[in-house]
Amino acid sequence: MADHAQSAAPRLTLSADEAVIVRLIQMRGPLSRAQLAEASGYSRAKIAAIVGRLLDDAVLAEVVEGESSGGRRPRLLGFPAGGNYVVGVDIGATSLDLALADFAGQIVRRAAAPADVRDGPEPVLTQVKGLIREMLEATGIAAERVHSIGIGVPGPVEFSSGLLIAPPIMPGWEAYPIRSYMAQDFPAARVVVDNDVNIMALGELRGGDGPEDENFIFVKVGTGIGAGIVCQGQVYRGSTGCAGDIGHICADPDGPICHCGNVGCLEAMAAGPAIARLARQAVQEGRSPALAQLLEAHGTLTAELVGVAAAQGDAQAMQIIQQSGRLIGDVLAALVNFYNPNRIIIGGGVSNIGFHFLNAIRRAVLARSLPLSTRHLQIQYSTLKGDAGVIGAIALALEHMFVIEA
Amino acid sequence: MADHAQSAAPRLTLSADEAVIVRLIQMRGPLSRAQLAEASGYSRAKIAAIVGRLLDDAVLAEVVEGESSGGRRPRLLGFPAGGNYVVGVDIGATSLDLALADFAGQIVRRAAAPADVRDGPEPVLTQVKGLIREMLEATGIAAERVHSIGIGVPGPVEFSSGLLIAPPIMPGWEAYPIRSYMAQDFPAARVVVDNDVNIMALGELRGGDGPEDENFIFVKVGTGIGAGIVCQGQVYRGSTGCAGDIGHICADPDGPICHCGNVGCLEAMAAGPAIARLARQAVQEGRSPALAQLLEAHGTLTAELVGVAAAQGDAQAMQIIQQSGRLIGDVLAALVNFYNPNRIIIGGGVSNIGFHFLNAIRRAVLARSLPLSTRHLQIQYSTLKGDAGVIGAIALALEHMFVIEA
Repeated sequence: MADHAQSAAPRLTLSADEAVIVRLIQMRGPLSRAQLAEASGYSRAKIAAIVGRLLDDAVLAEVVEGESSGGRRPRLLGFPAGGNYVVGVDIGATSLDLALADFAGQIVRRAAAPADVRDGPEPVLTQVKGLIREMLEATGIAAERVHSIGIGVPGPVEFSSGLLIAPPIMPGWEAYPIRSYMAQDFPAARVVVDNDVNIMALGELRGGDGPEDENFIFVKVGTGIGAGIVCQGQVYRGSTGCAGDIGHICADPDGPICHCGNVGCLEAMAAGPAIARLARQAVQEGRSPALAQLLEAHGTLTAELVGVAAAQGDAQAMQIIQQSGRLIGDVLAALVNFYNPNRIIIGGGVSNIGFHFLNAIRRAVLARSLPLSTRHLQIQYSTLKGDAGVIGAIALALEHMFVIEA
Repeated sequence: MADHAQSAAPRLTLSADEAVIVRLIQMRGPLSRAQLAEASGYSRAKIAAIVGRLLDDAVLAEVVEGESSGGRRPRLLGFPAGGNYVVGVDIGATSLDLALADFAGQIVRRAAAPADVRDGPEPVLTQVKGLIREMLEATGIAAERVHSIGIGVPGPVEFSSGLLIAPPIMPGWEAYPIRSYMAQDFPAARVVVDNDVNIMALGELRGGDGPEDENFIFVKVGTGIGAGIVCQGQVYRGSTGCAGDIGHICADPDGPICHCGNVGCLEAMAAGPAIARLARQAVQEGRSPALAQLLEAHGTLTAELVGVAAAQGDAQAMQIIQQSGRLIGDVLAALVNFYNPNRIIIGGGVSNIGFHFLNAIRRAVLARSLPLSTRHLQIQYSTLKGDAGVIGAIALALEHMFVIEA
């Protein structure tokens, strides 16, 4: 790793023109000068000048991985291999998931640990710092080589300030200065904070193979329910940064009272805890021997265990899962009519529950959305599974690594 | 008008750089060279070169309307006064509303007539052509001076082709080639077709005073209910062009069957015809002398007449209007949680019904949306009233007047 550590530190302030070129390479991977000219609309001379400066300042490097088209391979422009890094941090309600990646987004090291966000920001962020330091030590990378840290948190974030606003499951985190606390140990790094579902959507956007200007909704179903929205190939955060807060949309006006004070919220009726509650009810009422057995074996019933029972053919478990899927699908049907996305991606803990869940969502959406909006609509589980968050956190770090001059 | 008619025809094909400058002037009105440099990020030299070419080719003109800041007035760049025009056409279910405007969007002549879209495309478009010709004759403008025609229609449009797709209230219009039919008589004009609610949203965007990157939802409540979505200062049409089709979102799972085959669609329960139906019921059941009187006087009951009865203090009329507003507000509450807009604008025929309606919508949205999303949310009637469509059609024509080179 010593050779990497000796490579030059890149200039991190870019002009607007330079940022266009860097962003293209971040989005599409290494590109030739001709490809950059075509994609940017800049002249060949302008590309040559910009690329020359970016090579001199160690922002870009020549990489040899172009496809040969008969003659010699084209020299492509990418990011310098090694030497400079970003960190992605996915803070879940009960776990931390981290990765160290180079400027091309290639992960060089991962780390994970249980953690409880209810312990408050300093214990959790101290643990995050420790895990980052462990990854750096294991790879022989100096802390000042970390140029950006992207952090996803399970609560509403004011993106411009990086502060949490009234997070329901994160006591003590409200308005806590995450950025400056992290910067104490990594002074060379820009720190960017976003909501967990937004970074999952970003992870799918960068890791997926949809068209560049696509519109999709990433739905996280776990302890709560939230959505990350991608509009024309960009994460859309709304006017005050709280777009995608679909967990408190009314799923049933005759439903139970939610902790938010309203009645029949989707989250209260269809998220993980609701699935577990219905399963416990089925056991108490003697309706499901399979669930009773799982409860005895594990001491508790989770949504995932209800999925196990359903996979074993338990009718009660199946029905509970289908009801959750139908409620989510009914709400998504309304959003499909409004937003006309090309994909809906279902992720989060409950998405490990099996295909009955996805099928129930699909059926409800198709039953209530207009044919024009569902003709090309795909509804699928996240292909990144549990990694959407940490991959999205790396993408967030990469997107905000450079300062663009006004 | 002879002097105007003699001014040069502008070049209508622009390079990407030129298009940036022209778009800035279209969006903000006349600007100085310094303002153009600042807004575009281009150098003063580049601005001078681009502006020089656009002046030579009659795309732009020097206009004298800058504010004097002590010394001489700055020379601003705007569009040539007169000589070149666009037409906006708002085709409603039962009416046509047209305007002839110059390149700065100033309306020079208007025309309107009753028309029934159910008569099919050729009779209606022939009438549109006749009204355009009348406007041109009245102003002494030659047909070849019309460079763009923007048309709004009350049905779903595939924006890229300008074709209607399965329009529910426009028999015979499906896939009818509106563009080429119009081009027969106005060969110099580009013809652009969009959904009526999208052009209303565009009218509000261009005619309103919101921030340039704002996110809003324009809701048209008339015979049907539809929404036009503005995302970051642009009309958002969705992945297959049918975003905003909120009329068939489920407002009540126990509601009546809609013509679309589903149950409890918002449109079936809260649009103009539903309001009129509930009013007739109230008369039949002897619950409202005020509505009975209006029915006798007018031979029919419309949503507008229900508004008249409510203004007179009739409790039944008030209740019908409030119920419609509440149902619309409940659906909008879900969309606010999802989309986090800064404004909701209510327009269409039913928006003339009085403030009880708007208040019921506001109450329902505030009751069911999250505090973070409603903190800065404005819910208001369209200030353009019946003109949103035709003003939006002009804006559509202006935005698509120029061909931008790839």
